Amino acid sequence: MAEKITPRSQDFSQWYQDIVLQAKLADYSPVKGCMVIRPNGYSIWEAIQRDLDRRIKETGVRNAYFPLFIPESFLKKEAEHVEGFAPECAVVTHAGGKKLEEALVVRPTSETIINSMFAKWVQSYRDLPLLINQWANLVRWEMRTRLFLRTTEFLWQEGHTCHATPEEAEQETRLMLQVYKDFSEEVLAMPVIAGLKTDSEKFAGALRTYCIEAMMQDKKALQAGTSHNLASNFAKAFDTKFLDSDGKQKLVHQTSWGVSTRLIGGMIMTHSDDKGLVLPPRLASTHVAIVPIMAKAETKAQVLEAADKLAAAIREKGAVSGLPYTVSVSVDKDETKQPGWKFFEYEMLGIPVRIEVGPRDLEKGQVVMTRRDIGTKEFVPLADAPARVCAMLSSMQKDLLEKARAHRNANTFRVENYEEFKEKIEGGGFFIAPFCPDKEVEAKVKEETKATVRCLPLGDDFLPIPESGPCMVTGRKGNNVRAIFARSY
Amino acid sequence: MAEKITPRSQDFSQWYQDIVLQAKLADYSPVKGCMVIRPNGYSIWEAIQRDLDRRIKETGVRNAYFPLFIPESFLKKEAEHVEGFAPECAVVTHAGGKKLEEALVVRPTSETIINSMFAKWVQSYRDLPLLINQWANLVRWEMRTRLFLRTTEFLWQEGHTCHATPEEAEQETRLMLQVYKDFSEEVLAMPVIAGLKTDSEKFAGALRTYCIEAMMQDKKALQAGTSHNLASNFAKAFDTKFLDSDGKQKLVHQTSWGVSTRLIGGMIMTHSDDKGLVLPPRLASTHVAIVPIMAKAETKAQVLEAADKLAAAIREKGAVSGLPYTVSVSVDKDETKQPGWKFFEYEMLGIPVRIEVGPRDLEKGQVVMTRRDIGTKEFVPLADAPARVCAMLSSMQKDLLEKARAHRNANTFRVENYEEFKEKIEGGGFFIAPFCPDKEVEAKVKEETKATVRCLPLGDDFLPIPESGPCMVTGRKGNNVRAIFARSY
Repeated sequence: MAEKITPRSQDFSQWYQDIVLQAKLADYSPVKGCMVIRPNGYSIWEAIQRDLDRRIKETGVRNAYFPLFIPESFLKKEAEHVEGFAPECAVVTHAGGKKLEEALVVRPTSETIINSMFAKWVQSYRDLPLLINQWANLVRWEMRTRLFLRTTEFLWQEGHTCHATPEEAEQETRLMLQVYKDFSEEVLAMPVIAGLKTDSEKFAGALRTYCIEAMMQDKKALQAGTSHNLASNFAKAFDTKFLDSDGKQKLVHQTSWGVSTRLIGGMIMTHSDDKGLVLPPRLASTHVAIVPIMAKAETKAQVLEAADKLAAAIREKGAVSGLPYTVSVSVDKDETKQPGWKFFEYEMLGIPVRIEVGPRDLEKGQVVMTRRDIGTKEFVPLADAPARVCAMLSSMQKDLLEKARAHRNANTFRVENYEEFKEKIEGGGFFIAPFCPDKEVEAKVKEETKATVRCLPLGDDFLPIPESGPCMVTGRKGNNVRAIFARSY
Repeated sequence: MAEKITPRSQDFSQWYQDIVLQAKLADYSPVKGCMVIRPNGYSIWEAIQRDLDRRIKETGVRNAYFPLFIPESFLKKEAEHVEGFAPECAVVTHAGGKKLEEALVVRPTSETIINSMFAKWVQSYRDLPLLINQWANLVRWEMRTRLFLRTTEFLWQEGHTCHATPEEAEQETRLMLQVYKDFSEEVLAMPVIAGLKTDSEKFAGALRTYCIEAMMQDKKALQAGTSHNLASNFAKAFDTKFLDSDGKQKLVHQTSWGVSTRLIGGMIMTHSDDKGLVLPPRLASTHVAIVPIMAKAETKAQVLEAADKLAAAIREKGAVSGLPYTVSVSVDKDETKQPGWKFFEYEMLGIPVRIEVGPRDLEKGQVVMTRRDIGTKEFVPLADAPARVCAMLSSMQKDLLEKARAHRNANTFRVENYEEFKEKIEGGGFFIAPFCPDKEVEAKVKEETKATVRCLPLGDDFLPIPESGPCMVTGRKGNNVRAIFARSY
């Protein structure tokens, strides 16, 4: 029997850890800060990869693979970049039994090593745009780690592109931000706000960083993905040039963008409850668990037969239902465990739909279906069950997104006044305020409230939304923008 | 225009490198011994992953992910293991700006770190068998590297399983060997001999190692995959025990098995020719390239329309052809390049089928089709072209395997006499001989001939085939087995 999960109301952070460990999504490893992703968690990553990889490829990007190791000197070629990443690096100093002439950094991100190759591959404007992505592991030495959310090693995809003009690079940066937003909402059922990072929060080496920000159930923000316009910063450092159609040598304009296994943590903190994991159907590897009630010997065979038939009928219906995944159904024939135990277990594991097939219900020609997120039992005629399951899966996916959106909207507040903000931030949530972007002011807010500017939300023209009112913090007027302040993961 | 490829007859090793670089499959990186896998090469790896991952999962194995870093002390827990791997390790000594208390090894293989987790997860016989696989990068510091075949960092999958009995572990080891053999032959079209490694060639820490061995076009052997029965060697070192149904604590019995990006190198050296890459259709990301002949302005529109229609018809036919992949068709509308240039390019890239659509052929209601491996032109009525393409792809896959098998069989020789062997080995090939497995004898053969025992081929009962004749090298009689000697990669 599973251990008890700490309720969210009691200790959100402990609740999160309980879910991750008890649903066997991940485990602590003997290597400080590194996690082990267990099969139940890795299958979620596989579903993320499958869907996102398709979306990325549909934009014309191709996958490749670059070395894990980066010569230390490469990292130093871009001044802001090394300043940002050097403190987090793991360094290989010895290999093959000898001290290396030059130490190798385990990639914390790959702009530098990739530019060393791009500089060789890009010769002419005909080679552009160059659109590359890689799925890889990377290492950032973190002091305080948390399963999925912040680990020393994590898995991600990192896109890296080269373009002939600044406009194309900006367009690509925004395109991938949109891909991430659509993916988060359609697949993870996690609503996000797309925005621009302030200078103090942007990627080390970028001209500008766009991001998507989600609100967790504890009303804290989670950065769920970033897309960077790198301008020619790395191209300058690595001399990544092309011969343009006008006969001139020019630096390429670049982008990079990534999401990571952190998404799994965000998805858990968006949907799960005190009973365990709640998984959007698009991420589930088993969608339906059928539990045959086998207590009575005389009806057992009949119940098992009905369960198997139902499973087949659901699979068949699923294949023509238009759902964007193969509906996977399991029939739990384990007789060493009681149905009640199984129900708890499936709730813990986040199986979207549970169906009980018992002798009494069968007599009435019905089964009992339970949707994991809402938990209400529904008696469904056997013949209607396959169609009902598909409809349930479809509405569950939509409802999870809407519920999360409603939660976020209900906890997003407009503030104009710093004193009011300081008081309200204690209750959590997103705070929209006029702001004059300034590093020192941001630092002051962070120190006094532990909140940061999560992003400057984008308007329809993809620019931060302007605000005419005085800056919430400084009272300055003019050139203010709308900012979202929140405490974050 | 591509550079010239060195002919195989002139310099096989240079030919191989030319193919890899010119077909843009991989490139040298600035990090010693590490390669960059370019999109053309990575798409082959994706095809390998897709197919093999399905086969592995069909046996009940689930994917997971374990840390990149292994504490140095873990590696030392299994004596043979550390002896085998320590000289090849890359070591992280500093991280987060500080010297680490214990150095971390970048995984050269994951038996140790995985056992540290298995020891925690496995409690009861009910937890067995535990069947886990991971797709990952790993690092072995190699002195002499070659793109795909031997690189400091490479990509692979490594399966790790725990069982209650020695019999089950042995069964799993052989099952995965069979999965690899089927995969190599059905997908890579690369025939392999399954066999047992001698003690001097087995995995450091294994009870026994099975392998699959392929013959390259230069008649050298390539080890294409290994499956190890680890017995309880790592279980002892990590105390990986379970409570059996008889109430006793017992050590688990384990296996591990892996194939890597090396398979891509083996596939290239099996099928490719002096014109470039030859790719089995099951590994191709583009199966058919249609080249419209657009030289004449008055027929251009008509030719392009016919090409597009043909592409659509092939895709449609492909979907119902029973081929185990989606037939991907491209129409090359680039007017800056001549058809002749395109033909050379597609030959270099290994596109399985090329179709020319020209105005004169269209008048006759036909197109010209060329299968990459055999290169003969075939005039096909337009209406028959979709079905013909599918048939061509299907027979190309089969023919590549048969051709490679015929090459291997023609270059596999029976020898009984060491003097004869020493003479014939200079011409390359596999040599089957009676042998008394003995480390010192193997070392002598290697020193005198540069050949090694590739494997002891398995009989129907999965045991090495016995030989009654005297050992080829020592003349010893009794307890001899059949061995395959060859020079290898």
